[in-house]
Amino acid sequence: MKLTRFHNDAGIAPAVFADEQTLLDCSSFGQDWNEDFFAGDGLARLTDFVATNGSSLPSHDVNDVRLAPAIARPSKIVCIGLNYAKHAAESGMDAPTEPVLFFKATTAWSGPNDPVVIPRGSLKSDWEVELAFVIGKRAKYVSIDDAMNHVAGYAIHNDYSERHWQLERGGQWVKGKSADTYAPFGPFMATADEVPNPDNLHLWLKRNGQTLQDSNTSDFIFGIKEVVSYVSQFMTLLPGDVISTGTPAGVGLGLKPPEFLKAGDVIELGIEGLGVQKQTAVQEE
Amino acid sequence: MKLTRFHNDAGIAPAVFADEQTLLDCSSFGQDWNEDFFAGDGLARLTDFVATNGSSLPSHDVNDVRLAPAIARPSKIVCIGLNYAKHAAESGMDAPTEPVLFFKATTAWSGPNDPVVIPRGSLKSDWEVELAFVIGKRAKYVSIDDAMNHVAGYAIHNDYSERHWQLERGGQWVKGKSADTYAPFGPFMATADEVPNPDNLHLWLKRNGQTLQDSNTSDFIFGIKEVVSYVSQFMTLLPGDVISTGTPAGVGLGLKPPEFLKAGDVIELGIEGLGVQKQTAVQEE
Repeated sequence: MKLTRFHNDAGIAPAVFADEQTLLDCSSFGQDWNEDFFAGDGLARLTDFVATNGSSLPSHDVNDVRLAPAIARPSKIVCIGLNYAKHAAESGMDAPTEPVLFFKATTAWSGPNDPVVIPRGSLKSDWEVELAFVIGKRAKYVSIDDAMNHVAGYAIHNDYSERHWQLERGGQWVKGKSADTYAPFGPFMATADEVPNPDNLHLWLKRNGQTLQDSNTSDFIFGIKEVVSYVSQFMTLLPGDVISTGTPAGVGLGLKPPEFLKAGDVIELGIEGLGVQKQTAVQEE
Repeated sequence: MKLTRFHNDAGIAPAVFADEQTLLDCSSFGQDWNEDFFAGDGLARLTDFVATNGSSLPSHDVNDVRLAPAIARPSKIVCIGLNYAKHAAESGMDAPTEPVLFFKATTAWSGPNDPVVIPRGSLKSDWEVELAFVIGKRAKYVSIDDAMNHVAGYAIHNDYSERHWQLERGGQWVKGKSADTYAPFGPFMATADEVPNPDNLHLWLKRNGQTLQDSNTSDFIFGIKEVVSYVSQFMTLLPGDVISTGTPAGVGLGLKPPEFLKAGDVIELGIEGLGVQKQTAVQEE
């Protein structure tokens, strides 16, 4: 099952993909794809709902709607830093011996094809294609063996990052990770049954048609299981929380000389089985 | 007005203090003290509600209830690091030239007098009395002159911190800031009109009766106005979001030799006009 959301006159409607082109409006399911939904066995209930009602749900061509973030704004966006050895090298940092964690502000949450808005004063905004996953079941002190039972599904996340603010403005990375629109998520969350091996997925990113990132999650330093277990030792993960697994080499900071996002740039990115995103950069006045 | 929340058979009820000893149960107001409440001019509506209905609301002696965090779990807990020069020195760091920002996981949110639960594997859990404030109105690119219009009120926050995880486990501070119960908040949020000068408040913390932190927010490196404006350049602050303004000298890390939280420790802390908190430390099995 592929969960998504789209904008309509009433706000944002939850939906599922019936096929690659067609959305089924699930407003009548009566719940957004949020913490309560995942906590309350929502995926099983939604599966039954679609099986029973699918043929009578309003449908839309995906090209006729504006997609919203594929699930509701989570309570946390936990990110893994430097989880591909080549990206650590291009960032001038050692490969970590245990996962590096940081948070993005959840107000960065954005639709997969909405414009990316370069904030005022940004000098070095950068792209990062990442495999993200969604927590399905509360996770605290989870073992590696049990980890996959806590994953609801997978999606593309572009972890936009302002490098000057992240690295040159006094310490912690959060300043450079939290601008509005800097967390496009979607076009859909594929449930875990559709992604049998998340640690072996091709992922890529193009800027103005030029491929800059082109890798595979098989190059993870820390795989999905390890990440779930590791993060859950430090904090409780709630249903609907999002963990983003790090980006491979090819970000602007790593180019020689470095290049950064400019107004008018078109960023396209995709992950095997998880669709594509496309953002056009605009400069905030 | 002093907003709080308490546990009852139905879950958590919103309330206000009628006087130092007496809570008025505001369940019939029909809204928790959350993002929607603050965004929807909730403080003005609540003022009217209490003026009209105060005499008929169920009341409780504060000693007969278990207090919950004074407002609902926010979308963000933004913390300012090293905002008192002496604390920066005791942490072995230079005083910052611009605010240091980090996030705490919102799952750390805890009642003001609930036990603080030392997580498995913790080696160096530490205390930090802090003045926190609550955003009342969406804040983005806010000027210093306009900053105070975005502050709804003030409360005590104990920014419990696991120093080994914060400083010795691979980079970012978030690992040491995010354990469950590591963000006690309350006993109440005093509305801004009750705190005419937040940049001049006595604050203190005792461990087992011994005063360890004893300072005044007049020692802030960056005051409330500067902090609101600064943070809002990097991210959008939502109504109900919490910003914690940093801790003065006297944390366990700064003692010679360092001392850390042990099971059975009793931590009491207070801020002028904002009441007191009391936590007893227990070790998670």
